[in-house]
Amino acid sequence: MSIPRNLYRKRVKKAQELMEINDIDAILVLSLENYRYFTGDVRKQPRMLIPAKDEPFVIAFDGEKEEVEKKTGMEVKTYRSMPEMLKHVVGFLNSIEKDSPTVAVEMEFSTPAFLLERFRMANPHVEVVDAKPVISPLRKFKDKYELESMKKAGKHADMAMEKALDVIDVGMSERDVALEVEYYVRKKGAERLAFPMFVNSGERSLWLHGLATDRSIRAGDVVLIDIGPVFNGYCSDITRVFVLGKAKKEQKTAHEIYLEMQERVVEMIETKKGEISILEIEKENEKFVKEKGYGEYYVKGFVHGIGLNFEETPFPTIFPEDLREVVEEGMTLSIGHSVLSVRGVGGFRIEDTIYVGKKIEYLTSFTREFVEV
Amino acid sequence: MSIPRNLYRKRVKKAQELMEINDIDAILVLSLENYRYFTGDVRKQPRMLIPAKDEPFVIAFDGEKEEVEKKTGMEVKTYRSMPEMLKHVVGFLNSIEKDSPTVAVEMEFSTPAFLLERFRMANPHVEVVDAKPVISPLRKFKDKYELESMKKAGKHADMAMEKALDVIDVGMSERDVALEVEYYVRKKGAERLAFPMFVNSGERSLWLHGLATDRSIRAGDVVLIDIGPVFNGYCSDITRVFVLGKAKKEQKTAHEIYLEMQERVVEMIETKKGEISILEIEKENEKFVKEKGYGEYYVKGFVHGIGLNFEETPFPTIFPEDLREVVEEGMTLSIGHSVLSVRGVGGFRIEDTIYVGKKIEYLTSFTREFVEV
Repeated sequence: MSIPRNLYRKRVKKAQELMEINDIDAILVLSLENYRYFTGDVRKQPRMLIPAKDEPFVIAFDGEKEEVEKKTGMEVKTYRSMPEMLKHVVGFLNSIEKDSPTVAVEMEFSTPAFLLERFRMANPHVEVVDAKPVISPLRKFKDKYELESMKKAGKHADMAMEKALDVIDVGMSERDVALEVEYYVRKKGAERLAFPMFVNSGERSLWLHGLATDRSIRAGDVVLIDIGPVFNGYCSDITRVFVLGKAKKEQKTAHEIYLEMQERVVEMIETKKGEISILEIEKENEKFVKEKGYGEYYVKGFVHGIGLNFEETPFPTIFPEDLREVVEEGMTLSIGHSVLSVRGVGGFRIEDTIYVGKKIEYLTSFTREFVEV
Repeated sequence: MSIPRNLYRKRVKKAQELMEINDIDAILVLSLENYRYFTGDVRKQPRMLIPAKDEPFVIAFDGEKEEVEKKTGMEVKTYRSMPEMLKHVVGFLNSIEKDSPTVAVEMEFSTPAFLLERFRMANPHVEVVDAKPVISPLRKFKDKYELESMKKAGKHADMAMEKALDVIDVGMSERDVALEVEYYVRKKGAERLAFPMFVNSGERSLWLHGLATDRSIRAGDVVLIDIGPVFNGYCSDITRVFVLGKAKKEQKTAHEIYLEMQERVVEMIETKKGEISILEIEKENEKFVKEKGYGEYYVKGFVHGIGLNFEETPFPTIFPEDLREVVEEGMTLSIGHSVLSVRGVGGFRIEDTIYVGKKIEYLTSFTREFVEV
C-alpha cells in the first residue's frame, strides 16, 4: 500500500489547526519520527519548520537538497555550516510578526536538554512551549497506512520471538541470543529494533528494564525476552517469559496471574473503549493483583501507546498527565509493559501490541503460554 | 586487565573536587555512560547522586538491589514506583543545608528536554546547572584501562571495515551490507555499534550524516562507510570510501585531498599538542582546503573527542565553546569527522580514532588508500 503524498499534507494541515487552537505560531520538528510523520522522508538530524499559517519547509545540508525535495515535495533551504543553518531558523523566527512568538519544540526523548537550553538562550524573545498538545492528538490515532505498517511490525515481533525460542539454550550468553534474533528479524525485513533487545535471565529477570549481557543462561533460569522490531518506521513490542527446564509451581502461578491481568485489561478496553482512562485501567488492575496476593510485586504502568515511537502517548510512566487519557478507537497500545518482579521466583511479563478497532486486534500473537524449553 | 574498584572511587573523588571548585552541591547522574564511568556497572535508566561532600549512592529498582550493590559497592536506595523513586531524589535535595542548592545534571544527548523542564518545575528552589564543567575535564583524558578498551574497540572497527569491503557488491542494498557487518563485528565481541552504520552510496555519499537504506549499490558508486564498534563501553570511529569499479580522476583527487588533510591534522596534533586548540586546527585545515580549490565543498568540524560516547568533549560541531579546547596528551580523538561533499563527484571522508600519547597512536589502521572494489 503506497502512501499518497497528499496524506502528509493533511497531517500538516491538522497540526496547523491544532497550532491555531493552542496559540502556537510554529513548530520546530527535530525528531526522526515527527519528520517522517509529516514528510514520509527518512533522514538523520532532520530540521523542519511548520508555521501555523504558511507552508512548511525543510532545512537540509546542501548535498541532500535534491533528495529532500524529491522525497518531501516541500521547499528546502540549505546550509553548509552550522551558522548558515541557524540563520534559516532565526530568519524564520524573525519573520513572524509578533513581539514574542510562541514556538513549540518536541521535548520527548529525541530533544536533548542542551538544545532546549541553548535555543532559549539564543532566542530570548521566543516563548518556547512543548509540542505535545499538537503532536499527540494526531499521532495517537493510527490511519490505515500506519496500521498496515504496525501489523507488519507485529508479524516481525512474532517471528523474532519464535527465533528466540528456537535458539535459546543452556550455556548460551544473553548477548548471543539477542544477536541471533536481531540478525534474523532484520534479515527478514525489519528496519531495526526499536530498543536493544532484553534477554533477562535468572535473577536478572527481576529487573525493571533490561539488557542482554554476557551472562550465560543456566538450567532452571527464568528468561524474560522483550523485543520491538520496526517496520516502515512503526514499532511493535512483545514480551514473553520462558523457563529453561521445568517450571516451579510459584513460577507458573505468577505467570498465570500476569496472563489473567493482560486478558482482563484487553477485555476492559474492548468493552469500555471511549470511556475508560489509563488511570482507571491501572487502578482496576492493581486491585486485581492485590486480591491475588501479588500486590507487593506489581509495578505500575501496564499500558502505553506505541507507533513511530515504541513508547508514545499515552505514556503514563513518564508523563503522569497521560493517566487521564481515555482509550479510544484507532489507538495502538502495548499491554503488559511492567514486570511482576517476584524475588526468589522470577520476573514475569506478557506484553502484546494491540489495535483498538471496533474489536480488539492483536498485532502480536505468539503463544502466551508459559513455555518450558 | 581488570579494573580495580578503587579507580571508580578516585573518579568520584575527582568529580567532587571539581564540584567544590564550581560551587556545585551535587550531581544527578542519569546517563548510561557517566553511570558506567563512576561505578563500572551497566544498567538501563540508571540514577546516581554524587553529593559534593558525602558518599555517592544509587537509586535502583527493588529487584535489582543485590546486583547493583555487588557491582558498585555503593549504597543503594530502592523503589518500586515512580513516586518512591522521586522521594529519594527530593529527600536528598532537601537534606542539602542550603536555601537554594546548586545541582548539576547532564544536558547532552542522554537527558531529554522534558526531564530538565520537569525537574526544574518540581524543584523550584534548586539551581540547575550543566554537569559539563565537572564531567568533561575528567572524561576527556583516558587512563590506561580506558585506553585498553579504546584499542580493542579500534581493532573491531578495523575488522568491521575489512568485512564491509569483503561483502560489498553491486546489487546489494546498503541495509544488507550494514546488517552483515554489524552481525560479524558483534559476533567477534563488539558490545554494540555506537550509532547505526552509514552505508552512503552513490549520490547519498554527499550526505552530511548517514544511514543504510534500501538503495541498491550500483556499478560506479562511491560508497562511504562509517562505523563505530563499541568494546567495554568504549567507542571507536572509522570511515572509509570505496568505489565500485574504476574511480574517476576527480574522485581520486578529492580522496587525496582528504587524506592529506587528515595527515596534516594528525601531524599538527603530534607537533603542537599542549598548545594548539581545536579552532586553530580547524582554521589551518580550512586554509589548506581552500588553497587546494575545494573550499566550497568543505564542511567544518574535522576533529572531535571520543570515548564512552562516540562524540564527546571536545565536540565543536554541537558545542561551539569546545573550539577553545586545547588538544592535550591523554585525549582520544576522531580525525576526519566532516565530509568533503563534491556534487557530481561524491562524498569523501577518511576518519580514524587516535590516542594523543607522547607520540600519536592510531587506534584504527585499516588502509587509507582509495579502494576500487
